[in-house]
Amino acid sequence: MAVATQSLEELSINSIRFLAIDAVEKAKSGHPGLPMGAAPMAFVLWDRFMRFNPKNPKWFNRDRFILSAGHGSMLQYALLYLFGYDSVTIEDIKQFRQWESKTPGHPENFMTAGVEVTTGPLGQGIANGVGFAIAEAHLAAKYNKPDANIVDHYTYVILGDGCNMEGVSGEACSFAGHLGLGKLIALYDDNHISIDGSTDVAFTEDVSKRFEAYGWHVQHVENGNTDLDAIAKAIEAAKAVTDKPSFIKVTTTIGYGSPNKANTAGVHGAALGTDEVALTRKNLGWEYEPFVVPQDVLNHTHKAVERGAGYESEWNKAFADYKAKYPQEAAEFERYLSGKLPDGWDKVLPTYTPEDKGLPTRKHSETCLNKLSAVLPELIGGSADLTHSNLTELKGKGDFQKGQYQNPNIHYGVREHGMGAIVNGIALHGSGLIPYGATFLIFTDYMRAPIRLSALSQAGGIWVMTHDSIGQGEDGPTHQPIETLASLRAIPKLTVLRPADGTETSGAYKVAIERAKANAPTLLALTRQNVPNLAGTSIEGVAKGGYIVVDSDGTPDIILIGTGSELSLAVTAAEKLTAEGKKVRVVSLPAWDLFDAQDAAYKESVLPKAVTKRLSVEAASSFGWHKYVGSEGATVSIDTFGASAPGNVVLEKFGFSVDNVLAKAKELLG
Amino acid sequence: MAVATQSLEELSINSIRFLAIDAVEKAKSGHPGLPMGAAPMAFVLWDRFMRFNPKNPKWFNRDRFILSAGHGSMLQYALLYLFGYDSVTIEDIKQFRQWESKTPGHPENFMTAGVEVTTGPLGQGIANGVGFAIAEAHLAAKYNKPDANIVDHYTYVILGDGCNMEGVSGEACSFAGHLGLGKLIALYDDNHISIDGSTDVAFTEDVSKRFEAYGWHVQHVENGNTDLDAIAKAIEAAKAVTDKPSFIKVTTTIGYGSPNKANTAGVHGAALGTDEVALTRKNLGWEYEPFVVPQDVLNHTHKAVERGAGYESEWNKAFADYKAKYPQEAAEFERYLSGKLPDGWDKVLPTYTPEDKGLPTRKHSETCLNKLSAVLPELIGGSADLTHSNLTELKGKGDFQKGQYQNPNIHYGVREHGMGAIVNGIALHGSGLIPYGATFLIFTDYMRAPIRLSALSQAGGIWVMTHDSIGQGEDGPTHQPIETLASLRAIPKLTVLRPADGTETSGAYKVAIERAKANAPTLLALTRQNVPNLAGTSIEGVAKGGYIVVDSDGTPDIILIGTGSELSLAVTAAEKLTAEGKKVRVVSLPAWDLFDAQDAAYKESVLPKAVTKRLSVEAASSFGWHKYVGSEGATVSIDTFGASAPGNVVLEKFGFSVDNVLAKAKELLG
Repeated sequence: MAVATQSLEELSINSIRFLAIDAVEKAKSGHPGLPMGAAPMAFVLWDRFMRFNPKNPKWFNRDRFILSAGHGSMLQYALLYLFGYDSVTIEDIKQFRQWESKTPGHPENFMTAGVEVTTGPLGQGIANGVGFAIAEAHLAAKYNKPDANIVDHYTYVILGDGCNMEGVSGEACSFAGHLGLGKLIALYDDNHISIDGSTDVAFTEDVSKRFEAYGWHVQHVENGNTDLDAIAKAIEAAKAVTDKPSFIKVTTTIGYGSPNKANTAGVHGAALGTDEVALTRKNLGWEYEPFVVPQDVLNHTHKAVERGAGYESEWNKAFADYKAKYPQEAAEFERYLSGKLPDGWDKVLPTYTPEDKGLPTRKHSETCLNKLSAVLPELIGGSADLTHSNLTELKGKGDFQKGQYQNPNIHYGVREHGMGAIVNGIALHGSGLIPYGATFLIFTDYMRAPIRLSALSQAGGIWVMTHDSIGQGEDGPTHQPIETLASLRAIPKLTVLRPADGTETSGAYKVAIERAKANAPTLLALTRQNVPNLAGTSIEGVAKGGYIVVDSDGTPDIILIGTGSELSLAVTAAEKLTAEGKKVRVVSLPAWDLFDAQDAAYKESVLPKAVTKRLSVEAASSFGWHKYVGSEGATVSIDTFGASAPGNVVLEKFGFSVDNVLAKAKELLG
Repeated sequence: MAVATQSLEELSINSIRFLAIDAVEKAKSGHPGLPMGAAPMAFVLWDRFMRFNPKNPKWFNRDRFILSAGHGSMLQYALLYLFGYDSVTIEDIKQFRQWESKTPGHPENFMTAGVEVTTGPLGQGIANGVGFAIAEAHLAAKYNKPDANIVDHYTYVILGDGCNMEGVSGEACSFAGHLGLGKLIALYDDNHISIDGSTDVAFTEDVSKRFEAYGWHVQHVENGNTDLDAIAKAIEAAKAVTDKPSFIKVTTTIGYGSPNKANTAGVHGAALGTDEVALTRKNLGWEYEPFVVPQDVLNHTHKAVERGAGYESEWNKAFADYKAKYPQEAAEFERYLSGKLPDGWDKVLPTYTPEDKGLPTRKHSETCLNKLSAVLPELIGGSADLTHSNLTELKGKGDFQKGQYQNPNIHYGVREHGMGAIVNGIALHGSGLIPYGATFLIFTDYMRAPIRLSALSQAGGIWVMTHDSIGQGEDGPTHQPIETLASLRAIPKLTVLRPADGTETSGAYKVAIERAKANAPTLLALTRQNVPNLAGTSIEGVAKGGYIVVDSDGTPDIILIGTGSELSLAVTAAEKLTAEGKKVRVVSLPAWDLFDAQDAAYKESVLPKAVTKRLSVEAASSFGWHKYVGSEGATVSIDTFGASAPGNVVLEKFGFSVDNVLAKAKELLG
């Protein structure tokens, strides 16, 4: 069909298709198939429904859009370009997948304004969307008034077959159905092609029926290639259902318009090639050069700029009214949006002395969370069905449930992976909420992808992980972390904190809250078992990542380095060695990355190069410790799997006793 | 109801309940609720249906039983005890959850004969069950004859609400439905209680409808507490459906029989307490002392011993007939069961010289897999929808699909986590199959739990992970491993191999295959991009984990240590340094744990203590490298996230170039 006979909408949709085709062709790398097939639903959504302000991509009350099928990133870049965002110019599109471009291979929220979340690892985006919808519902329930809907937006997600095969999407969508999140609308690009070919080779379930089972409102658009009105009607119907999330299966043809590659895996993740691009141009009647969009299209799509300015100014006016009527709520809400903490918030964090009763650090964590919640109502979170083991309940604050969205205690169910992605979504909603998610430390293995993504995509959540060693005890090796701390410490930009006692737990929360407000995640590793409160620990010390808790005069003969529950073993061993006339220093090292970030002088003052007799004490793998104990040091550690028995027995059997620490220290001292 | 009026079945079921109650009570730790509620379905299954030989728990053709809800381990220990297994005596049950007992907190296949797989991390067991059913279907299709069903058993799984909330179970069960695995029968202990309380707080989906959507045959037993015939009828009906896996929702009461704690979260994971135990005894009319099982019950259940001996001898006879008629198939099948490799199998592994064309190690991996498959037909596996990226297809061997179970190429779909657990299931089926699973290295984050479990539970699979560094290129940081190698190397008993070229890839497969037959898993990290074939690499060197590939006379001035694609950078830098008169050694370190396991003399011969100037070169995190480079060494590494751009650009920008290696080496040399 020649251009002359194409409607403005058809031209716009073909513009998206060819921007994707041409960008992938130039980069010789990328995924043209999804943008070509999903362009109609995406265009209808952005053009007829979505409320956003291209010139202020962070305007609070915007509808959120997530491309869960992140490999189709050119779809999103084309939309941002067409609808007038400054972040993606036609030059940026020409730089698709090149070094430091605004158009990387997968959408990265930290690279490109208008991209809400980083997607690519499949299934994460839809689960982030559940987090967005939770954040919206929570803020709406808290701040809206009968006469003022200042929080009122939709979350739209486009997801593909891959997303729907991943368990994380199932976990999050089951939970969304349970919660009845009516403003979450997912469009499923049902193109029945994945990388291995037809989805018939591996994926023949009835996806719609599954979403019905989850309690979603489900529709089907049979012709997602050309029936734009059917797409629009389905979105309208989805909006009309307010007590259930909506799932719209939109059947499309991957690589629509390519005469030889449409409906094949060949168009999923590779350039079409010169000949096929030409044939596709011919087939779709596309007379334009690469990277050229008809002016009529731009004239139309750029209207979004004025429209968006209008939305925002309307909202600003509404918010001004709200502020006049509800100054207290407005002040709190504005503080949320500012990303600031209230003055003196950290004064609520308790410190302890050795006279205070020894408790598990998970119990200290509970105290911190509850005290903080009184001054930081933006705390919202919960556990993956281990609330009373993780001790994460904000007491007296109620459960976040359908019709009770104002409450902050979320019961995630046994869905660690979904929880992780939802926590990231709440953080990246960008409304100042501080989300947290909890489980046993070992089960970070179930949610490692979202933990990594929190660090990569600057999602400031707090991971509250308890039962952090073989001290866990009877549950045995499947529940006892060994290598887990090392595996998490290795993640760039994730601070892993393993506090030793009550004071250090307060210090850990001070770091975690400040990092959350700076869009950086923190993981806390907390004990199941009691630990004594130590004399030398401090909130300030924790912030430095490593510091001296016990010292002798002059250069020490040996340095014992401990973390968490084993710091007290080091302290007691040091006392005994000192009594035997040795000069001993004990260093607490609760956060390796924070210590590494200190200046050289500080680091030398804590771990002087001259002192090569160093012994680490941590009920975990020795992996990574050689950086601190050095070539001549040693570790008290466990490099095998644990065992089932009472926690104190397991710890003792694997050498986490004062006697063994002493013995190892003496070996080093020679 | 007094004992006198209880049927033998009721007495047996109550025996299971009280063994669980009493063991948990004695240990003061454990989960009585599930065994109390699920005892009826478990007893009916074991007593009326399951075919096994208690005196030979490894008899090949046994029905397999998996307790996916592993926290209910006392259910399984009680069954093993009652049905005459030697592995669990009444004394063992009294040692529940104690050091080195046969009855650890969660079922561990390596501790207790009769336990097929290690469970505890929820959702894994049902997914392992899918692996069992795949193994059975594959072997049956390969070896059965019209007149001889030598492979013919069921896989039964009991799973709970927690398992059903986990995404991994959804992935695996969707796949099982796709494959139509008719001999997989899952009983869902629907007790609507999880740790946080009623499942109403988080889990209100229609689970049965979801399984229907997956293509399963679904039934509901409304009264799983006392309607034993309904349970039996449902299992019979499930067996009658041969083209779909069966899901039987059995509604039960958690902690059945406890007057005050039944149907509460309080009975899920804690001892009942003395008073409630007494009340439960009264309520169920149980007149026996703790750990006493009525002799009538034992007389009945021990009949399983004779029955089992009969099953096995029947099968032995049938197999003898089979062997007479089909000697070739029988010989192969017997070799499978023996765990032995055929003589000279490793002769097919190619070696290369620098004159051979440089290829990606994933391409060498494809060559190895295909060459090995010709001599090791027990290789079975595939990719999570990245077959043509991972290059894991066994060419010309056909796809494993419904009705085509004899073929070895499995298309897992985009289900990494499910794939991991299925691979473990195939390995732990114990029939000599060597399963492998493939995806991009970064997506081990999605399947870390089963990878860890493979190491813990001695499941000899091969993890084929490609695109192993920022050399991945354009897909960007979500697809580029940084900390991934470190996080995997930290897992105890997992060998992580990163071969440098074609010869080392052959060496890696030699290790992996031998380990698989020894029930140990291996993970291969393979490049997307081309690497040259090097002069000094060898299959034997790889087996040692680390070895010298380039050396100069006498004590070296510096040692460069490389792995994978970066070894060639080290070699080239060494040539240049040598030309400048330096004495340089290059060490290849493809497998840290294998090197660590060498004797001290060998290690000293490769990395002499006296040589402290050491530089590692690896396109990954420095985390863990200090163990090898020592306090005075340095690393060429990347400790931030990657970026989207062509692979060679990304590598260059982050310092993985000969020039940068040279510069760093010269810095060290001073």
